[in-house]
Amino acid sequence: MNVGKVIGHLYCTIKDPHLTGQRILCVRPLGGREKPFWALDAVGSGAGETVLYTTGREASYAFLPEIVPCNAAIVGIVDELREEEP
Amino acid sequence: MNVGKVIGHLYCTIKDPHLTGQRILCVRPLGGREKPFWALDAVGSGAGETVLYTTGREASYAFLPEIVPCNAAIVGIVDELREEEP
Amino acid sequence: MNVGKVIGHLYCTIKDPHLTGQRILCVRPLGGREKPFWALDAVGSGAGETVLYTTGREASYAFLPEIVPCNAAIVGIVDELREEEP
Amino acid sequence: MNVGKVIGHLYCTIKDPHLTGQRILCVRPLGGREKPFWALDAVGSGAGETVLYTTGREASYAFLPEIVPCNAAIVGIVDELREEEP
Amino acid sequence: MNVGKVIGHLYCTIKDPHLTGQRILCVRPLGGREKPFWALDAVGSGAGETVLYTTGREASYAFLPEIVPCNAAIVGIVDELREEEP
Repeated sequence: MNVGKVIGHLYCTIKDPHLTGQRILCVRPLGGREKPFWALDAVGSGAGETVLYTTGREASYAFLPEIVPCNAAIVGIVDELREEEP
Repeated sequence: MNVGKVIGHLYCTIKDPHLTGQRILCVRPLGGREKPFWALDAVGSGAGETVLYTTGREASYAFLPEIVPCNAAIVGIVDELREEEP
Repeated sequence: MNVGKVIGHLYCTIKDPHLTGQRILCVRPLGGREKPFWALDAVGSGAGETVLYTTGREASYAFLPEIVPCNAAIVGIVDELREEEP
Repeated sequence: MNVGKVIGHLYCTIKDPHLTGQRILCVRPLGGREKPFWALDAVGSGAGETVLYTTGREASYAFLPEIVPCNAAIVGIVDELREEEP
Repeated sequence: MNVGKVIGHLYCTIKDPHLTGQRILCVRPLGGREKPFWALDAVGSGAGETVLYTTGREASYAFLPEIVPCNAAIVGIVDELREEEP
């Protein structure tokens, strides 16, 4: 799992039926070295928010029992984040 | 999930039986830094269109209940796409 | 599977319900060439410990029968580690 | 999914029982920038042929109902391939 | 799937219960450009041996019906390996 920022959205009229009603948001990974990508939103996040996301098939677990063909999902809105070097 | 453009197609006479009847299209990721790859088309897209695709096993979900050995699927045709820096 | 060090943590008030009660820790892969990432903790590890982690959907197996949308899990605390060139 | 060329093979006497009777072939991705890897052959391809392959767990779908611990499978022999820039 | 050499091992007293009794070995991919990683051993391999390994969730298939949170498994000991350019 990683942390990123919501920076955009897209719309598809023609799409896989399991994506109907899902919000598709653009997420830029924190740190800026990796390319933004598109994720389904499972928690109601919005532009500018710092979010926790997961990738791979396990991303689709956030939408069970619906089985969605997605490989990235926003699963949390980050309140506090701390990296320390013990 | 990412966004790309359909730029080609291929044909196999000898193939896994679950791929029979599926269209195999070449997709170039937007941005141009990543290599084109081959995806099954779940939405009827065509050459030159901007599409939303998903990779990994979850790509095969677009073809359920058929279980296809594919790791990339086109799941939407993009109408509008907006990246903004809030 | 790889070996890393626990270097941080984060909190989300709004999150996928399957992440409730799980600790989300930041892990830095040993060797230092790869970026730290966030993992669910399955073994009670803490800051500064050297841990064995797994990524991908199989990470979520550590939390079965709960199906969690996570793609990284800490599955062991390393006591002894030896790389040798035979 | 990607396209590559069959360039070698290997034999293991001691192996996972689900790999028994499967051919393990070396595939070099077309384009030459990526490293060759080893894949199970689901379609009877041979040295020198251009093939369509899939990676990840979905590769193992080509061998269902057998569940094989493989993450790459040759799923088609390519007859015609066309990349165009519309 | 890829080919590597067994170069080390590790021990964890505290670990996910599904890893109990499994050997965790360090594998260095052949070619030397990729980083060594840790894999569960499904075939009884030992230090210095050339092995076939698989990664991703499908690695855990080697241990069915046990469901282990591992993403890399040694599934064969290589007797003969040949890469040729036809």
